[in-house]
Amino acid sequence: MHSIEYYRQAILDHLEATITTSEPTNLYEPITYILQLGGKRLRPVLTLLTTEIFGGNYKKALNAALAVEVFHNFSLVHDDIMDDAPLRRGKVTVHEKWDVNTGILSGDAMLILAYQLFEAYEPETFRKLAMLFSKTAIEVCEGQQYDVDFETRDDVTIPEYLKMIEYKTAVLVGAAMKMGGLVAGASETDCHAIYDFGKNLGIAFQLQDDYLDAFGDPKTFGKQVGGDIIENKKTYLYLKALEGTEDGNKEQLQHLFSLQPDDPSQKVTTVKEIFVSSGAAERTRQEIESYTEKAFGVLNQLNISSEGKTILEAFGKQLMNRNV
Amino acid sequence: MHSIEYYRQAILDHLEATITTSEPTNLYEPITYILQLGGKRLRPVLTLLTTEIFGGNYKKALNAALAVEVFHNFSLVHDDIMDDAPLRRGKVTVHEKWDVNTGILSGDAMLILAYQLFEAYEPETFRKLAMLFSKTAIEVCEGQQYDVDFETRDDVTIPEYLKMIEYKTAVLVGAAMKMGGLVAGASETDCHAIYDFGKNLGIAFQLQDDYLDAFGDPKTFGKQVGGDIIENKKTYLYLKALEGTEDGNKEQLQHLFSLQPDDPSQKVTTVKEIFVSSGAAERTRQEIESYTEKAFGVLNQLNISSEGKTILEAFGKQLMNRNV
Repeated sequence: MHSIEYYRQAILDHLEATITTSEPTNLYEPITYILQLGGKRLRPVLTLLTTEIFGGNYKKALNAALAVEVFHNFSLVHDDIMDDAPLRRGKVTVHEKWDVNTGILSGDAMLILAYQLFEAYEPETFRKLAMLFSKTAIEVCEGQQYDVDFETRDDVTIPEYLKMIEYKTAVLVGAAMKMGGLVAGASETDCHAIYDFGKNLGIAFQLQDDYLDAFGDPKTFGKQVGGDIIENKKTYLYLKALEGTEDGNKEQLQHLFSLQPDDPSQKVTTVKEIFVSSGAAERTRQEIESYTEKAFGVLNQLNISSEGKTILEAFGKQLMNRNV
Repeated sequence: MHSIEYYRQAILDHLEATITTSEPTNLYEPITYILQLGGKRLRPVLTLLTTEIFGGNYKKALNAALAVEVFHNFSLVHDDIMDDAPLRRGKVTVHEKWDVNTGILSGDAMLILAYQLFEAYEPETFRKLAMLFSKTAIEVCEGQQYDVDFETRDDVTIPEYLKMIEYKTAVLVGAAMKMGGLVAGASETDCHAIYDFGKNLGIAFQLQDDYLDAFGDPKTFGKQVGGDIIENKKTYLYLKALEGTEDGNKEQLQHLFSLQPDDPSQKVTTVKEIFVSSGAAERTRQEIESYTEKAFGVLNQLNISSEGKTILEAFGKQLMNRNV
């Protein structure tokens, strides 16, 4: 087994060797641009790591890992158009640097390129990888659609919200790990279990993202603390607060989430107070803990070495111990 | 073998049974909407027909045929956004009926759904179909990018233009037919040949579309005659006219293609005169003939019954004998 940093470098090398700019340049330059913007490369690293945990050689998994990374970046390009986002990882988004049409078409090409990366595998594995990929990709689209739909709905339930983040974010983490299992030739039971591990960890991670957005340390949290509150985003914290609060507070919270004040600092403070007083903050922490435990619980079912389990657990813990 | 109309109905039935609206409806309703807008269903019909010409049962090819149709409609949805087109087949386009974001996301889902339709095939065939599909889909994206690029270039060459229409339009016709061959288990040589037949016929068809846009009979040509001239579209006719005309006429043509007059009738008349006097009209007809002959020439290489050859030739002739 190698270090996370080693796998990350392997991904970057493979990316550079595989995704090159060809003609027409207006189609391919945005693709190399977004893929070289950086990021933690978490998903493809998980594919390589999982392959080795199941006894395979990570090199065999490079194409599958890159497919996951290319797909993830495809979804970023199209999502950024839909959100009209000017920046991604601190750099100009594709549709801002070029234009919306370029973002649409280059994104389409990335989705196809992701499928092409599976062509390195023999028919049986190719089919399994492509089928898992398609199922996951469709779910990511559905998750994005739910996210869009929720913006204009005020009756979103907690189960609906959990399904949305599962589809939009967590299934790709599960799929990235299961692909590692498929490449290594792991059993169906193991592939299923590692998928659940990744998916549950993905949900925990996304819930933590909601939590840290309000209660994170501005020094270590990558984004603006309170950003979701300022944008009136119906996060898990918000939905839990609505569920757990008295009628008076509920109306106040809903009212605050209809405002867009020029100086949002008072609004952020008040909302955070309601998040705490309603018990939503505490219950969100419990939910994060619960999904993390669910993920770790799966590890015992896996037919892998105890070293492998230790690594996966350490990885999960590291991921969940981002500074609050 | 069945009639074209029989195959068309089989596609429509399979479409209705397979592509249904599920949750989230905002994602899936636009998909069923665009797929039920009509159209000639030329490409999927060719897949079924080719399967039977190679001795297979058309029913086995229904999923591959539908994948081609779903992909074609995906490209229409995204192209219509890029062109800001209000109408498609006389009906409101997806991004007009819903919005641009819906068009992007539903289009993405269609591309993935197309791949999923191949999952009905066993691994070897699945891999061949998906690989051909990916190669074709990437070329269609490249063709679309060239088309966009050409709008702002005034040095487009004839070979560049031919490559653009080959990628944007013709390769999907070739692929639709080759998929029929793959499903029927035709030899590699036959699959290659039928692909060339479809591709060359596709190029001839697209060149004829350019020709009819200027010289077609308004009563039988589906679109507004002269539409390309009004929109200053650099078609094959235009590029051939620039190539074949004296310097004075060349400047006049380029000047006319920089104008957007309120009443374009005089411009259309003058441009058509130049298309004729420069020999471009005649040379375009020759080029159409040449690609059609190239397509028919391939038929002799095919290891199929003479009945099969007759049907393909009749189909090609019918396609190319649209009224001028």
